[in-house]
Amino acid sequence: MAKKETGSGLYDTKIEALGKAKIPTPLPKCRFTGDSETVTLHLSDEEFSELAAAPRPFQFEKAGPRELLYFDTSKVKCAIVTCGGLCPGINDVIRAIVMEAHHNYHVASVLGVRFGLQGFIPAYGHEVVELTPEAVADIHQFGGTVLGSSRGPQPSDAVVDALERMNINVLFMIGGDGTMKAAKNLVNEIKKRGTKISIIGIPKTIDNDISFITRSFGFDTAVEKATESIQCAHVEATGAFNGIGLVKVMGRESGFIAAQAALALKEVNFVLIPEHLFELEGQNGLLPALERRLEKRGHAVILCAEGAGQNLCGISKQTDASGNPVLCDVCDLLTSSIKDYFKKKDIEITLKFIDPSYIIRSVPANAYDRVYCGFLGQNAVHAAMAGKTGMVVTRLQSRYVHLPLKLVTRKRKKLNTNCDYWRAVMESTGQMLPQAPSGKE
Amino acid sequence: MAKKETGSGLYDTKIEALGKAKIPTPLPKCRFTGDSETVTLHLSDEEFSELAAAPRPFQFEKAGPRELLYFDTSKVKCAIVTCGGLCPGINDVIRAIVMEAHHNYHVASVLGVRFGLQGFIPAYGHEVVELTPEAVADIHQFGGTVLGSSRGPQPSDAVVDALERMNINVLFMIGGDGTMKAAKNLVNEIKKRGTKISIIGIPKTIDNDISFITRSFGFDTAVEKATESIQCAHVEATGAFNGIGLVKVMGRESGFIAAQAALALKEVNFVLIPEHLFELEGQNGLLPALERRLEKRGHAVILCAEGAGQNLCGISKQTDASGNPVLCDVCDLLTSSIKDYFKKKDIEITLKFIDPSYIIRSVPANAYDRVYCGFLGQNAVHAAMAGKTGMVVTRLQSRYVHLPLKLVTRKRKKLNTNCDYWRAVMESTGQMLPQAPSGKE
Amino acid sequence: MAKKETGSGLYDTKIEALGKAKIPTPLPKCRFTGDSETVTLHLSDEEFSELAAAPRPFQFEKAGPRELLYFDTSKVKCAIVTCGGLCPGINDVIRAIVMEAHHNYHVASVLGVRFGLQGFIPAYGHEVVELTPEAVADIHQFGGTVLGSSRGPQPSDAVVDALERMNINVLFMIGGDGTMKAAKNLVNEIKKRGTKISIIGIPKTIDNDISFITRSFGFDTAVEKATESIQCAHVEATGAFNGIGLVKVMGRESGFIAAQAALALKEVNFVLIPEHLFELEGQNGLLPALERRLEKRGHAVILCAEGAGQNLCGISKQTDASGNPVLCDVCDLLTSSIKDYFKKKDIEITLKFIDPSYIIRSVPANAYDRVYCGFLGQNAVHAAMAGKTGMVVTRLQSRYVHLPLKLVTRKRKKLNTNCDYWRAVMESTGQMLPQAPSGKE
Amino acid sequence: MAKKETGSGLYDTKIEALGKAKIPTPLPKCRFTGDSETVTLHLSDEEFSELAAAPRPFQFEKAGPRELLYFDTSKVKCAIVTCGGLCPGINDVIRAIVMEAHHNYHVASVLGVRFGLQGFIPAYGHEVVELTPEAVADIHQFGGTVLGSSRGPQPSDAVVDALERMNINVLFMIGGDGTMKAAKNLVNEIKKRGTKISIIGIPKTIDNDISFITRSFGFDTAVEKATESIQCAHVEATGAFNGIGLVKVMGRESGFIAAQAALALKEVNFVLIPEHLFELEGQNGLLPALERRLEKRGHAVILCAEGAGQNLCGISKQTDASGNPVLCDVCDLLTSSIKDYFKKKDIEITLKFIDPSYIIRSVPANAYDRVYCGFLGQNAVHAAMAGKTGMVVTRLQSRYVHLPLKLVTRKRKKLNTNCDYWRAVMESTGQMLPQAPSGKE
Repeated sequence: MAKKETGSGLYDTKIEALGKAKIPTPLPKCRFTGDSETVTLHLSDEEFSELAAAPRPFQFEKAGPRELLYFDTSKVKCAIVTCGGLCPGINDVIRAIVMEAHHNYHVASVLGVRFGLQGFIPAYGHEVVELTPEAVADIHQFGGTVLGSSRGPQPSDAVVDALERMNINVLFMIGGDGTMKAAKNLVNEIKKRGTKISIIGIPKTIDNDISFITRSFGFDTAVEKATESIQCAHVEATGAFNGIGLVKVMGRESGFIAAQAALALKEVNFVLIPEHLFELEGQNGLLPALERRLEKRGHAVILCAEGAGQNLCGISKQTDASGNPVLCDVCDLLTSSIKDYFKKKDIEITLKFIDPSYIIRSVPANAYDRVYCGFLGQNAVHAAMAGKTGMVVTRLQSRYVHLPLKLVTRKRKKLNTNCDYWRAVMESTGQMLPQAPSGKE
Repeated sequence: MAKKETGSGLYDTKIEALGKAKIPTPLPKCRFTGDSETVTLHLSDEEFSELAAAPRPFQFEKAGPRELLYFDTSKVKCAIVTCGGLCPGINDVIRAIVMEAHHNYHVASVLGVRFGLQGFIPAYGHEVVELTPEAVADIHQFGGTVLGSSRGPQPSDAVVDALERMNINVLFMIGGDGTMKAAKNLVNEIKKRGTKISIIGIPKTIDNDISFITRSFGFDTAVEKATESIQCAHVEATGAFNGIGLVKVMGRESGFIAAQAALALKEVNFVLIPEHLFELEGQNGLLPALERRLEKRGHAVILCAEGAGQNLCGISKQTDASGNPVLCDVCDLLTSSIKDYFKKKDIEITLKFIDPSYIIRSVPANAYDRVYCGFLGQNAVHAAMAGKTGMVVTRLQSRYVHLPLKLVTRKRKKLNTNCDYWRAVMESTGQMLPQAPSGKE
Repeated sequence: MAKKETGSGLYDTKIEALGKAKIPTPLPKCRFTGDSETVTLHLSDEEFSELAAAPRPFQFEKAGPRELLYFDTSKVKCAIVTCGGLCPGINDVIRAIVMEAHHNYHVASVLGVRFGLQGFIPAYGHEVVELTPEAVADIHQFGGTVLGSSRGPQPSDAVVDALERMNINVLFMIGGDGTMKAAKNLVNEIKKRGTKISIIGIPKTIDNDISFITRSFGFDTAVEKATESIQCAHVEATGAFNGIGLVKVMGRESGFIAAQAALALKEVNFVLIPEHLFELEGQNGLLPALERRLEKRGHAVILCAEGAGQNLCGISKQTDASGNPVLCDVCDLLTSSIKDYFKKKDIEITLKFIDPSYIIRSVPANAYDRVYCGFLGQNAVHAAMAGKTGMVVTRLQSRYVHLPLKLVTRKRKKLNTNCDYWRAVMESTGQMLPQAPSGKE
Repeated sequence: MAKKETGSGLYDTKIEALGKAKIPTPLPKCRFTGDSETVTLHLSDEEFSELAAAPRPFQFEKAGPRELLYFDTSKVKCAIVTCGGLCPGINDVIRAIVMEAHHNYHVASVLGVRFGLQGFIPAYGHEVVELTPEAVADIHQFGGTVLGSSRGPQPSDAVVDALERMNINVLFMIGGDGTMKAAKNLVNEIKKRGTKISIIGIPKTIDNDISFITRSFGFDTAVEKATESIQCAHVEATGAFNGIGLVKVMGRESGFIAAQAALALKEVNFVLIPEHLFELEGQNGLLPALERRLEKRGHAVILCAEGAGQNLCGISKQTDASGNPVLCDVCDLLTSSIKDYFKKKDIEITLKFIDPSYIIRSVPANAYDRVYCGFLGQNAVHAAMAGKTGMVVTRLQSRYVHLPLKLVTRKRKKLNTNCDYWRAVMESTGQMLPQAPSGKE
């Protein structure tokens, strides 16, 4: 099959390689993926509003095992590093990489770099660990990351120094937006040096806000876990007169967890997300709407993404270790506003606030995410052994594909509030807060 | 937008309607779906091997609320019937239909027909029940179907008689392959009579074997639940010398649950599915492979779809109440074959058999399936109110679409054993049983 | 059997009755409990340190169905009220009372009083609800209380007015220490009026701090649920360099949940409870101990009862609606102290705080508590029908008994830190913080 | 305190020791248990019907750490063996023994004997494993036994040979009735040889049928897990017209799991246990009662202990590897009897049978059992180090005590059907099957 055009310009979907693949694979004879096979996908504006201007359809390089490899796998040394916040499924991805690399490609070694990019910097003194199949056999039963993680960047040259020092041929980087950007920088540094190290990303974001990534691994588990807390908020709300349950979930710049959890648990009455600005007071405000709800039903549940309502409290200029802006605590604001509002009106309420964030992100992956993580890990190894670099593996519309790093780091994904999905959330909650005009953005 | 061609001939994707939609919707002003909007999808041979000969890409009618309706919804009487075996999420679909129909379309009434198609036949004496929002508010917390179910067909004319007698305008049918065929017959009978009743199907199949349906609702929950039993089988297997855990899961003609569960729980060593014929004895046989596994590791887990290995025991000519062939009990056969084999070799083994079928299918839906069921129910109501008929709602590649009944009932979906997915199962289990020649097919 | 002496003076275990039981029970012929049957129990100082001075053994009136009753049950009107904070199992107790009263005693009616003692006060305008077997059939599947609750007392005469107005013969009160005191006041008011209303308490306290009550219902579920959050804290702690997980659990004056959860999940390194004073700094302080732990293992989990460490922050004089002192927020104090301590020492740490309180108390009861709640409800009805009053039902050393209200309200139960149980906690955590001298109490 | 008399004759509660304890413990200074401390317990006939003729109250030796030990613990070599069927919590007990022995007594070594008593017999070729704290750190997260198990006895002299060969000083035996008898035989063999090996039993029985053991570890978890299957049976029963759910649970000679699960899940209508004989046909028969239930409610759930109804099918003379009689399959009998009965009456029914046995017993322990197992393991080590032998550790009425092996192996515990507990089951289910006359026993 002739190599099809895989996009161009801004949306170029071409994948880089360290060199020509010409070494036969040690994989048992199976169904190989041709290196020029592509997947044609009609990505929807609804799902990827950030792609509105992009040409369609997209042609992506198909993930899968190649018959010819770039590396002599028996001599390959791999490394895995996990960065940023926890997310269900990290250990599953680690396990899948180790199992695939050892059992199918018989690599020389897979090393685990400890505590994120810090692990490459000698000053921190973190030892690398050998990841054998025995060592990782049961890790998928536990949440978190057996390697440990840290936030924030480290100098690219220091990281590449470390890779060279340890003779690493392939680095698998599991992390979010910032980590994928760091990966891009590593690729550039490696190119500059003319060395041959493959950098393969596996995008991790519990907020589900990476562009081109429909559903990042761990998201489904996080939503499932979040619904448990929302159910508790509902129980608390109904257990008191004019009971209000307020639940905060992750979602710094996008409200995917909140929206999905609201669809999964029909007890939510208000879903507040960063993409949908709202007002507190006035005809269209949250507080009068809450009052009407209490009058009618006697209880209410509010589900709030951590990044919602930033317009209400003045956007901070501070940033955290990963370079993300420090958010104002919208749930603090909501709590005091709600209490004041009803106190002024002399209406007795009981407000219970639940913040389940760390509980949601540190549980083991559910079956759905385990399967997903398994495929990501396997395909990451397939790509690496074929000499691919500067790319991530993901699933798009049920197909596993390779995406260039620069595509996924162009822009953060946001929930399209002008789509069927958000309409369904509105229908399901009965919430009718109009999008407020954004005075500040 | 001009109405695009939506396929033709065998794979015609055109949706029938009872008549022209011209009544304004009572839905609050929102984002409506244009009646001629289509979704372009490149369905993959890998996922739908039964579509190998079909033209690509497909154009499907997009699901969603229409601005103009066929029915004056305030006068509409709906009915819901649930048929066939249990499946997680049925109550979620019922609830979503009732909530959407009442809260957004303000229909006159939604009736629940009890115990499947039997509920239409006066001789059985089952009363219909009124499904109000209050009555269904909590039903999603429970597995099964609040309406009850039954297997097998009933005469189309008797069912349509009942629909006319009760002045039903819309019938939502939740059921499997057989039910969708029954739905088609009802559509024909209704057309013959010139009456105006919409028949909307919501495909339900825990085996995931309906054509064009990527993942039927409840499947994800079933897999998740199945993994718990497989984990127990693994514990039992490792708890004894040469321990063997044998787990039977649903899958009469297709091994989707078995395959997916094996990917989700890495402890499975052999996955037996109907699509992959295998032999017991001989060089490529299961029993010698099992012996090798025990020698090497001291324990093994076999996951067996109920319809696997039918070539080994002679296919029965009997059929059950739903018209499905009665299967031979392959796990009985495996149990005795395994015991005999190792007894002859004087090798001590401990075999534990687990059949979790009813436990898997009768649990409440997980978060993933709840969201899915909610969309199915909402979109089914949208379609019905617009006067659509003879169709089902489903999600394909993350998009909700309408499919003609005749498309989904053409052929059963089977797992493509020549695809990346099955290869991943083979890689994950390390199972290397070659596909046996089929002497009989 | 002759009526045995059941204690005297302060520890008098005699149960009051409204009058002589002489009406035959409608219960099917079964094994009845003789009204003078007692249970001899050697209560241990270790478990009940507050009973250290009490005479032994105790003789308690045995719970169970009586052959002769005080009430003509077919004319009896019962009421149930639930007070104070949520606790797993409240709905189970309500359900058990309703089922027993209706199915076995065929009472005229069981009313549900809404939102705690407020429900008796006309000014609040809460309607009572009829609790039929159908209405309560599924409520045990849900956490919380279907009746709603509120905190704080209401005037006894107003409550008794309401009971008389509604012709209530029996009031079942599910609540904590404060509610049991309110119950005592109601008994006195009823006696003063010479009316015949039975008051039966079912002690509810998620803190497990009611005297003579070994394990209050819901405690086991709460501990089980708490362990999930602690596991998450452990995952977070190990996922970062020098990671510290800090978990707050309920326990205002006693550390039972914290201690039991630490025994259930071996990942806890420090358990802080109100009964064991500790210091932050100095040789025996928590902070240096935490530093030693991090040096040795690189991560730590601290489990803190909300009432721990009050000596560190100055005891407040404020009280909440239930009359309990407002506690200082010890976890705030710990968080800032820990951060300061390690910042001063220039040691990088990552601290994650989890407060799962509402998640713990609002879940449905587990199997253990369901069985327990069932017995409490049944025995409460048996006692009421026999004309008992001013008492609670409970289980002591596997036996169900009646306790006078005045016994259980004498003193709050505290964890005996000089016992095998607390020693086991110390052994299990490896925590060696000596009990600090109490400078302030 | 003077040593109190601890019983005599048949019910002698005196504990044997290898010799006088006179070596100081390495335990940190803590609250020690005096060697002559006893616990006075009024065991109830209701709970222990097999003790009806025993003198009361009982005085048991109190469990706990001793200040003086028999062994110089730093030189002690321990071994652990797990026998018989799986049960939740075995790994917790193993872990607790290893942690206590290593961390607090600093023993030289703890060995794990593999696959039950077979592990002592060289012919089987099973290697022993070293159980270090690191090796067992996470095993409580998994069901089953990391050591593996087997059924059936092995010659005592061969086992003691092995113990001597490996220089074992203490053997911890985790197993059921048969294992405790084997333990007694080992004690005798050891005495005969004049060697000094301590044998400490930790009774394990998922049937909860060991005398003097109120609640064996894992029982609570098993019940909890069983209720999930029963809930599924209920869902299946209500999902069909005249639906019947039949669930089989463990309970060869005693119906504790069945009874407790029925109390925990109120959906059970008939509980069949070995202690309560019943008839199928006739006025008092199960089948007519089932018919009445279906007429009234349209569905029914039957919960059947595997040893129930043996009078109906003729008692077998065969025994299994552990020496237990082979039971007839009462659920097979029920299935065919029910089908025949209703077929004859031309009543349509749908019967669903669920056998969750292996799923129930192979799950990890819940929080309740984890705490319990932790205490059992710790106290077993305390006893062993003090030189105790021929005993088991258990909890009776919330107190941890030592029991002589001969006491717990005298007789199997059965559920007293003439007690409050069974009456509560009858009340809860509404089942009114009278105890059938036992024609055969």
